[in-house]
Amino acid sequence: MKTTEPIESHATLSYQQAGVDYRLIDPLKVSAQQAAAATAAGLGAHGFSEIKASRGESAYVVDVGPFYLASIVECLGSKALVADEMARLTGKSYYDGIAQDTIAMAVNDLITVGATPLVVQAYWAAGGSEWFADADRARALVAGWQRACEACGIAWGGGETPALAGIVEAGRIDLAAACTGLVNPKQRLSLGDRLGAGDAIVLLDSSGIHANGLSLARKLAQRLPQGYLTPVTPGLSYGDALLAPTLLYSPVTEALWQAGITPHYCANITGHGWRKLLRHPQRFSYRIHTLPGMPAVLAFMQRHANLDDREAYSTLNMGAGFALFVADRDAARTVEVAQQMGIGARVAGSVHAGPKELVIEPLGLRFDEGELQLR
Amino acid sequence: MKTTEPIESHATLSYQQAGVDYRLIDPLKVSAQQAAAATAAGLGAHGFSEIKASRGESAYVVDVGPFYLASIVECLGSKALVADEMARLTGKSYYDGIAQDTIAMAVNDLITVGATPLVVQAYWAAGGSEWFADADRARALVAGWQRACEACGIAWGGGETPALAGIVEAGRIDLAAACTGLVNPKQRLSLGDRLGAGDAIVLLDSSGIHANGLSLARKLAQRLPQGYLTPVTPGLSYGDALLAPTLLYSPVTEALWQAGITPHYCANITGHGWRKLLRHPQRFSYRIHTLPGMPAVLAFMQRHANLDDREAYSTLNMGAGFALFVADRDAARTVEVAQQMGIGARVAGSVHAGPKELVIEPLGLRFDEGELQLR
Repeated sequence: MKTTEPIESHATLSYQQAGVDYRLIDPLKVSAQQAAAATAAGLGAHGFSEIKASRGESAYVVDVGPFYLASIVECLGSKALVADEMARLTGKSYYDGIAQDTIAMAVNDLITVGATPLVVQAYWAAGGSEWFADADRARALVAGWQRACEACGIAWGGGETPALAGIVEAGRIDLAAACTGLVNPKQRLSLGDRLGAGDAIVLLDSSGIHANGLSLARKLAQRLPQGYLTPVTPGLSYGDALLAPTLLYSPVTEALWQAGITPHYCANITGHGWRKLLRHPQRFSYRIHTLPGMPAVLAFMQRHANLDDREAYSTLNMGAGFALFVADRDAARTVEVAQQMGIGARVAGSVHAGPKELVIEPLGLRFDEGELQLR
Repeated sequence: MKTTEPIESHATLSYQQAGVDYRLIDPLKVSAQQAAAATAAGLGAHGFSEIKASRGESAYVVDVGPFYLASIVECLGSKALVADEMARLTGKSYYDGIAQDTIAMAVNDLITVGATPLVVQAYWAAGGSEWFADADRARALVAGWQRACEACGIAWGGGETPALAGIVEAGRIDLAAACTGLVNPKQRLSLGDRLGAGDAIVLLDSSGIHANGLSLARKLAQRLPQGYLTPVTPGLSYGDALLAPTLLYSPVTEALWQAGITPHYCANITGHGWRKLLRHPQRFSYRIHTLPGMPAVLAFMQRHANLDDREAYSTLNMGAGFALFVADRDAARTVEVAQQMGIGARVAGSVHAGPKELVIEPLGLRFDEGELQLR
């Protein structure tokens, strides 16, 4: 499904040009991670302890005795800007969809450690009280948020709806979700100590761009003749395609548990694209032999932003929203369970002893350890 | 300590004039609360259930079997704007202090239900990658965040540091904290079913404005001859006084538990000022006979913004950061325990059968049910 011939000639549009400079953020992240690690001792006074291996993973895990407690906060990022612009162009509200995106950002990270998401807290910081006066938009946000919670069996506990004039821009909203869950029973913990050579890599389909790479997507919109209204496929505009909500993968991980399958490791494929497959701290080689189907909007973006495969796969999800590393004997059943939950899936590759690298065989691409500095 | 004579003549500066119009936000909040309540059924599939009485309280509580799980997300609000302006005026960074404010907003709410805060997730959304390039400011934020976690025995689990150009204003940062804790053992739950006539009201000191009423404070700065550099007391500028970090009350609630005291109810005094004392859903009359000492900055604000007592006490904390409703026999010991933890406290009033009202006797003020629509 991947389209390689460029139909227009453009300079390559890199993620860094698109406005996010990780070189400036990453030193703060590292110093925050060190300071955060130092606070773990405080749990001892309450009779609890952290699971150290969860530091740097997608969710933080604490041993509270009968089970593990997992928590996370995640933000939507700049996808709200696309929703706002499409609302202006079409008169529709897309806030039901981006509500799901926001929850998916948190839920899909939380489940990587083996947790069942239980409670979501909403963080909706608007540029001013008047944001909330658009009743249709507010209703769509509430309805989408509720639906996404219901799809995952999560209780929406409450949240915060500040009006932050002077911090958040007028007419905009900063959406984030905090999610808490339990790893229960404890043997569901999937921090990767069980990962080993011979394991299979099952990739779950994405629905499109999800909520990573939107800075690039927005920059690209400026280049397109009809902007967000440029057709990606007949009848589907670029803006509508971008706004396909992120898939929620917790129904799959819950169904896997019911089916007796415990993943050895999981990776939510978000920022850094497929480089996230290198996330596990130990040295393994990951070989991909089968590519997932590619959502049309991602093929369109690669073509129009003139990204080579290396740049595309290291920035966008390229059709793979979530990776499950499972025992080889569980691989086919994992695919079946995902499909029963309505999520496309395939056995896409395998784990090998060897240097830390990701090889995407059908594309002749290789990423090594140096290409994912941050965990 | 309260100063009542106005030293300058100004029109009254109300909270609504200062930029936050709750009439626009509140309908969304109500509709979100209804949608959120509907999601609770999802917990049943995981074998858990919500504690319904926590809906509308300061933190959301789920029964997970051996104990209760409590969670919350809270934002700092506009205090960061004061920190930014004071940094410009003085060359100092105030981000260590506002880090504590942000954590206090979450922790002081979480403990109202009887929970021990265990994990904080940081949400730091900047207006662009370049925010993080100011190493001193970033270091102060990290150091203050760590210190506040350590003061409460909380593990800083991780967080999210997005660069949100186009959503968050350039040069600004939106700070929030998500906090998860446990009510353990379950009899620590303090959702208010034990509150009754005859209980004592113990008020814990605030350190100043904390993190509510900052829109008003900023508006007032524009009126002052020297702005934020106007002295509040000799050697203490208005800006410095505003930026006194919010006190963290979880060491007090933990020490109370160790001392065998379980509050019947708690109220974190934030937005809506002392009207928060009316938060409990049932009908009780609350009579205050003793006022706490007033931080100089709040007396200064009342005077310069020309607020009458009714407006001041319904907007600002006026010296009381947190209210503990305890059995009368525990009142004196509660004060002692708080003082041992370094927090000023006094038995300030009592709970009575009668109409839902708050009477602040020394000021001849009465607030009734209609003055706190939202829980």
